[in-house]
Amino acid sequence: MNCVIVIIDGLGDRPIKEFKNKTPLEYANTPNLNKLASNGITGLMHPIKKGIIPGSDTSHFSIFGVDPEKYYSGRGPIEALGANIKIKNGDIAFRANLATVDSNLVLKDRRAGRIDSTKEFCEALDGMNIDGVEIIVKPSSWYRAVVVLRGNGLSDKISSTDPKLTGCRILDSKSINSTKEAKKTADIINKFVLFSYEKLKDLKINKERESKGLLPGNILLPRGAGKFNKIPTLKERYGISSACVAGGGLYKGVGRYLGMDVIEVEGATGRYDSDYDAKVSAVNKATKEYNLVFLHMKAIDSAGEDGNPRLKKELIEKVDRAISKLQSELILVTGDHSTPCELKRHSYEPVPILICGSGIRTDGVKKFGERSCMQGGLGHITGLDVMSILMSHAGFSSLYGS
Amino acid sequence: MNCVIVIIDGLGDRPIKEFKNKTPLEYANTPNLNKLASNGITGLMHPIKKGIIPGSDTSHFSIFGVDPEKYYSGRGPIEALGANIKIKNGDIAFRANLATVDSNLVLKDRRAGRIDSTKEFCEALDGMNIDGVEIIVKPSSWYRAVVVLRGNGLSDKISSTDPKLTGCRILDSKSINSTKEAKKTADIINKFVLFSYEKLKDLKINKERESKGLLPGNILLPRGAGKFNKIPTLKERYGISSACVAGGGLYKGVGRYLGMDVIEVEGATGRYDSDYDAKVSAVNKATKEYNLVFLHMKAIDSAGEDGNPRLKKELIEKVDRAISKLQSELILVTGDHSTPCELKRHSYEPVPILICGSGIRTDGVKKFGERSCMQGGLGHITGLDVMSILMSHAGFSSLYGS
Repeated sequence: MNCVIVIIDGLGDRPIKEFKNKTPLEYANTPNLNKLASNGITGLMHPIKKGIIPGSDTSHFSIFGVDPEKYYSGRGPIEALGANIKIKNGDIAFRANLATVDSNLVLKDRRAGRIDSTKEFCEALDGMNIDGVEIIVKPSSWYRAVVVLRGNGLSDKISSTDPKLTGCRILDSKSINSTKEAKKTADIINKFVLFSYEKLKDLKINKERESKGLLPGNILLPRGAGKFNKIPTLKERYGISSACVAGGGLYKGVGRYLGMDVIEVEGATGRYDSDYDAKVSAVNKATKEYNLVFLHMKAIDSAGEDGNPRLKKELIEKVDRAISKLQSELILVTGDHSTPCELKRHSYEPVPILICGSGIRTDGVKKFGERSCMQGGLGHITGLDVMSILMSHAGFSSLYGS
Repeated sequence: MNCVIVIIDGLGDRPIKEFKNKTPLEYANTPNLNKLASNGITGLMHPIKKGIIPGSDTSHFSIFGVDPEKYYSGRGPIEALGANIKIKNGDIAFRANLATVDSNLVLKDRRAGRIDSTKEFCEALDGMNIDGVEIIVKPSSWYRAVVVLRGNGLSDKISSTDPKLTGCRILDSKSINSTKEAKKTADIINKFVLFSYEKLKDLKINKERESKGLLPGNILLPRGAGKFNKIPTLKERYGISSACVAGGGLYKGVGRYLGMDVIEVEGATGRYDSDYDAKVSAVNKATKEYNLVFLHMKAIDSAGEDGNPRLKKELIEKVDRAISKLQSELILVTGDHSTPCELKRHSYEPVPILICGSGIRTDGVKKFGERSCMQGGLGHITGLDVMSILMSHAGFSSLYGS
């Protein structure tokens, strides 16, 4: 059986007053997701475990059967793989946002007005050397970038430079464990952040943006320091071939970490304008060659982070239309976490999940939603259960015992 | 409170078209199981954990509260205990099928036409000596037998001789860990398998079978090598007395492993013709003497392995009729795994469970089935939860803390 796992980023939400106390998913018109739910089995999925607020990285690790408690070492290396950087042993990798600060380094916007590419900005910073350490800077999707430090005596035990709140000064990175290596690494990152401001603030592209009333991308804020650890690939665990179709860099990185081939799709941007139909076409082609295809849809999460339930609803409907064309013997649809519009951030609430394919025990649930799936036959599962169930149903698991 | 735990082997299934997309259990007429469900609490039980395909041995360990991750060491020792062999430290035990091969040792039938006894065949092979190692061969239920190697320097780290597929040659057993002991043991098993063919092919009983158009039992194929490890008995864990009523050798072996007295019942064959009424009568007698009685019903699983949903449904109805006579203060009914007729093998799907007795919180579920129990008050539990719940309800557990 070939199978597709669709992850709709930030899918879950909370009741919204203007939606008659329905969530964006419940309020949206989703005939195709509802059909999959009706012909499949449903439930609620806690990406890490009950009550835990998942990061996008830890959540994807868990959903793909890689226990983050054992294997997670920061988001940086995943983003670096997503940006197709060949990271080496000992490298310290960071994700970074291109952001907007004022001249006192007070944060005005964490995403420089959701700028749609960091390419020119990264080129201005890539390849410098601070205290004998090489600094690689590459663009990731949208306002995101990747920073890799390459040199001797570095550590990933350092804190973030991103306060995650506007209106306050950027943070100094600090050693977490007081080692010489961590202090050195934090020091280099702090120098790099100040340098990025000096270098970017007068960049031509920023002058142009300001003249149009747009926020300049005038600082790069690294966070999520991590060292690369090899994790068991899907080939090693289940003997399967697998591919990834995603716009966002993080998700390509997750795919590469798991040994998937990353299929680049024109128009798959990870942003609001992403071409979902093109992604689904690519998936349909890939299912002929691969045992498992991972399809990731990012922008729904961003609408939640922007606190925009109408947009979130529309994007869910866009996903629903695209999914009507999805062809696979076994389809699993879920989210990687909830991103309630009222919170504008990830939350602990579980996300609905459905599995549809031959032989599935249907459960009578007719609608794909946070509350309808409370009655689903899968009950409450965790992220680590997802691949176990999917691989067993698809025939790629073996008997435990005899 | 005395209690009975009824395990219906291979109980769970998938929707079947000719049954209006009901499972054999859902389609069967089961007024007595439904009455127990109505008066009890229900749920779904994952014998190992969600998504894992349980073997019959690991599943029974787990349901009786013995974590297979800690204690399981292959099926052989359990089958040997089931055949009432007094295994000793250092012995290596195997389960074995009496099978049919052609003269090129290509497998024609893994069960010699589901031959109903291996007694004469085992007698022809029992007691031989190969390279200084004594070989004990005893019949188990139906087409099954047990092989025990007794001697110095043996290992259980060897592979199976049973390809589990017809149309291909039997397998050579091989060392799994490349030790001298494993190589020696695999070598002896390979010699034994060839010897069994030479000895059995011309056996009088086979000539008779062939003249009737039946498949000969002309080879014995050992698999599931294991060393005996003592496990905590029910007496040690809960201070209770317990007994086992089962036809199949494996289940008697599980009972003996757990320290149960095995009650032999005439007509309890583990086959389609097994006398369920006689077994239930034996259980009713035993509940007067023992705190816990384990009743195992095997043949339902065999109907699933044979891909015969009508027979599976009929056997479930036969279980249901027998259960109407069951007398106990506390009754738990479940399966050890699903064996969907469409797969003809074990699968990962959970099995329904019910617990009925005084003081139980009923949950409104009126029908014992895979999907009705999705709404049950127990929710989704695992095998390791079963004895915890049952023993606490029966009053055999103590407070954790104070």
